[in-house]
Parts: sequence; structure tokens; C-alpha cells
Amino acid sequence: MAALLTSRRVEFRDTDAAGIVHFSAFFFWMESVEHELLRGAGLRVIERGADGADVSWPRVSVTCDYVAAVRFGDEVEVAATVAAIGRSSVTYAFTFTHAGAVVARGRIVAVRCRMQPGRKPEPLPVPAEVAARLRAFSAEG
Amino acid sequence: MAALLTSRRVEFRDTDAAGIVHFSAFFFWMESVEHELLRGAGLRVIERGADGADVSWPRVSVTCDYVAAVRFGDEVEVAATVAAIGRSSVTYAFTFTHAGAVVARGRIVAVRCRMQPGRKPEPLPVPAEVAARLRAFSAEG
Amino acid sequence: MAALLTSRRVEFRDTDAAGIVHFSAFFFWMESVEHELLRGAGLRVIERGADGADVSWPRVSVTCDYVAAVRFGDEVEVAATVAAIGRSSVTYAFTFTHAGAVVARGRIVAVRCRMQPGRKPEPLPVPAEVAARLRAFSAEG
Amino acid sequence: MAALLTSRRVEFRDTDAAGIVHFSAFFFWMESVEHELLRGAGLRVIERGADGADVSWPRVSVTCDYVAAVRFGDEVEVAATVAAIGRSSVTYAFTFTHAGAVVARGRIVAVRCRMQPGRKPEPLPVPAEVAARLRAFSAEG
Repeated sequence: MAALLTSRRVEFRDTDAAGIVHFSAFFFWMESVEHELLRGAGLRVIERGADGADVSWPRVSVTCDYVAAVRFGDEVEVAATVAAIGRSSVTYAFTFTHAGAVVARGRIVAVRCRMQPGRKPEPLPVPAEVAARLRAFSAEG
Repeated sequence: MAALLTSRRVEFRDTDAAGIVHFSAFFFWMESVEHELLRGAGLRVIERGADGADVSWPRVSVTCDYVAAVRFGDEVEVAATVAAIGRSSVTYAFTFTHAGAVVARGRIVAVRCRMQPGRKPEPLPVPAEVAARLRAFSAEG
Repeated sequence: MAALLTSRRVEFRDTDAAGIVHFSAFFFWMESVEHELLRGAGLRVIERGADGADVSWPRVSVTCDYVAAVRFGDEVEVAATVAAIGRSSVTYAFTFTHAGAVVARGRIVAVRCRMQPGRKPEPLPVPAEVAARLRAFSAEG
Repeated sequence: MAALLTSRRVEFRDTDAAGIVHFSAFFFWMESVEHELLRGAGLRVIERGADGADVSWPRVSVTCDYVAAVRFGDEVEVAATVAAIGRSSVTYAFTFTHAGAVVARGRIVAVRCRMQPGRKPEPLPVPAEVAARLRAFSAEG
């Protein structure tokens, strides 16, 4: 299978007074596509754990490199892959293109955690079945 | 002088349904502190160039590593420094702390550019006077 | 024709620490649907005017009433109509439903304006042809 | 006492490609000032109720009228008052000025509610002591 391919149209909320898309928008798109990938893998973004606590995927590291500006109304294509699966973490890689040219590349490292109100997110191992589902989107998948 | 020290209180708009601050908020804080640093250096975020075009600082690379979650109402301290000045670029480094503990570390690389409507941002050299002003905030400044 | 019908899935960026969609998200959806309606009417959100200045539709009044909370991942249906066309203004009405029940109702009044950098937006009459195209989405259209 | 007076500097995140502040920003400022007012009244934005559930103030109605555009870097003054206190609701009124001229007027109606994960927010009466504290900010306060 490999990459999840999807697209987003630039909305006005994501532009800024420089007349281009604000750099933060790429992170919102990455998150949205990450969630689309999880759903495509048959997984839930937030699971109710056996003990009633939510299990989710807070990020521990994100990065984005910008190659070219995009503008209001532009159609941006996103290719997302699972670049690595660690004990508790998943690394996603994103390539953004517009009109056939790369405009940005990003990366998110998310850690599977038990989330409890007022407590520190507690890392959990990625279950084998979850890893198998995610590997369908690995670059070599 | 070295680091610019400032603080931000977590606003509700920056929280998410996991009950913590959304990871994107750190980029908005970085941008806000970058602009505070520019003003502190006696520089403008957007200058009107000699030819009437705006000169500004679009980002070419940003990154953030998350160490601990912060929550609505928390006071977050930010220490910002100029980590490097290149021919056209400035690298800012940010350390975020809450209650004395580091919660995140980020980096922004911005490039001085001539901005013209409908045209690709065009990189410009960082003028010596601008570099001198920014160096007041360098880690060894 | 009458209402434009479209839907939006609640993204994580639009949730808050109360576990529900932040009230601001409905305005971003209204704007996005307003733009979809303009495109559906064969109009541009931002036009280049005869004199080179942009012509766009800044808002003069917006309102939203919230009936029920929606949550991350929910599918929200939006019905948008053109409720009124004035000399320079267009009023859009939006009804948001989830799972068959109304969750919110909103309204945007936008004014056709010439936009020039550093100048006050200048209201322009709505051209007859533009009004005719918008009326295709009027409640009685 | 009457109005709470505060100010906000327009940040880049709140601008859009029309070169002005996006209309949504005023709602974020209203929320931020509403929370500042609650804290100024000695109240908490989110209280832990006697039964362990959170008690907070979701909005049932918001509105904003825009008089003039504001831009990146502008200092916006906000005057906030408590316009009405109902059985379960509080109405806040906001006047935004820049350089001495009104730029926008807004209103938020919030309802005191018990918030429980996965359940509809449940309206609660405003306790007399809470009402008394809020009245310090009423227009005739």
C-alpha cells in the first residue's frame, strides 16, 4: 500500500498578512492526515482503554521544512507514510506538493500514551496488532 | 544581553480535547516571541523596502520537541536566543519552561525576503546592521 | 436551487480542553462554506478589480447560537443560504446539524469592498450579475 | 468598578491574506478577556464541582459587529462588562477600540454548566455568590 495520498484546499483561516499560508497550517494538515491515516488503518485516534482511561497519541517531536509558499485557494496534495515504529512511538513523514512541485516536508513523532485528567501522559508500548496495521503505510509497506 | 525572557499564559483557544495544550500552540508562541525579539532589537517584522515592496522573514524550517504537557491557565516562560545568523537566514532557539521544568524546545529558521503579491518570496542578504542588532540576543551575546 | 449542503468532520485543532468543539470553529466553517458557496455561484472570493486593487468581502457582522455540543470526529452537516442582498452587503445564514439534530445556527453579513494595503476597506455596490448569481442560493431561490 | 479594561497586541497568527485581522480573532480576544474578568472576580474558569465533575461556562450565543479593520502590530483596547446575569447565564459585552476609535463590538452569552465526558453539558443556576462577584463588572456596577 505505502503512502496515504490526500489533498487539502487552502482555507482563508490559514493565510496571514504576508499573503501566503501561515507556517502553522502545515502542522494542522499533518495532524488531520495523521488522523485520516489512523482511521484508514482501522485504528481510533482516541481509544477508551480497558481501565476507562483514554489512550491517545500526543506528539514528542514535530518538524517542517518549507520549500515554496502556497496561497489561499491552492490545492495541496499530501503524501503520508509511517517512517518508523518504535517501542511506544510512531514517526510519520509528510510530503506536500502543489501543482506538481514539493512545497514542504514534515515529520511527526507521536507516542502512544494513557491520558488521565491532571496527570502526565504515560507512554504505553505499541501493541503488535496496531504496529501491523500502521506498517501498511510504511514507505516500504 | 543574550536571551530574551518572556512569558505566556495558556489560553483556552490553545487547548485541545486531550485536555492539554495543542502542539501547534508552541509555534504560535515562538512566532510571537520572535516578533518581540525583533522589536526588542529595534527592528520591524515587516519593513517597507526602498522599492515599495515589503521585506519580511518567512520561515524555511521549524521544529519543536515536547518534554511535558502544559494545561489551560499555566504560565509558560520562554527564553529565546539567536542561535545563528547566515547570509540570508536567522535561526532562533526557544526553551519553554513551566514551574521551573523544561516543557519544550523549539527552533525557527527564518529567511529575509522581499515579498511581492503573487510572486515567490525572494531571499535577501541580512544587512550588517540588522545582524549586529540580532547578535545582541545570541547565546554568547 | 436554494441551500448549499455540505459537511465538515470535526478536526482536533477545533476542540478544546472542555472536550468539545471550541465555539470559534463554527465561524471557520461558516467562512469555508461561504467561500464554497461563492465558488458554486461562479464567483471568486478575491477578485482583481479593474484598477488593480483586490475586491473582497470583509464581514461587518457575525453571530452564532449554539444548541448542542459537537465532538472530535463528529460529522457536521451545514446548510447555507443567501438570506439577504443589500446595496453592498450579502447576508448568509447557516444551519449546522449533527446526527439529524440542529447543533448551531449562524449568520454572516459581508460587504463587498475594494481592499488596498494600508487603507480602509471601501464598500462597493454589489453588481447586478453578482447578485443574480448569489440569489441562486437564496432561501426562496 | 464597572468595565474591565485591558489590551491586546495583534499577533501575526490572527491576520489573513486580506492584510487585516481575521474576524475570528475578536472571539479569541473576547474569550481571553472573559477569562481575565472571571479571574478578576475571584472566580475560576473551570471549577471542580462537589461531585468531581467540572463546572464551566460554554457559550450559547456570540456576536460581533465590525466597524473598522485592525492590522498586525496594532494595539487594541478592550472594555468588558457584565451586561446581564440570568438564572444560568451571564452576558458579557465587549467594546474594542484602536487609537481612540471603536473598531468592533461583541457579546458572549455563557451558561454555567456541569461538564461530563461524553454527556451533554448540563445547565446549573448561577450561585448568588458568583453573581455578586460578577456584578462588580456590570455596566452600572
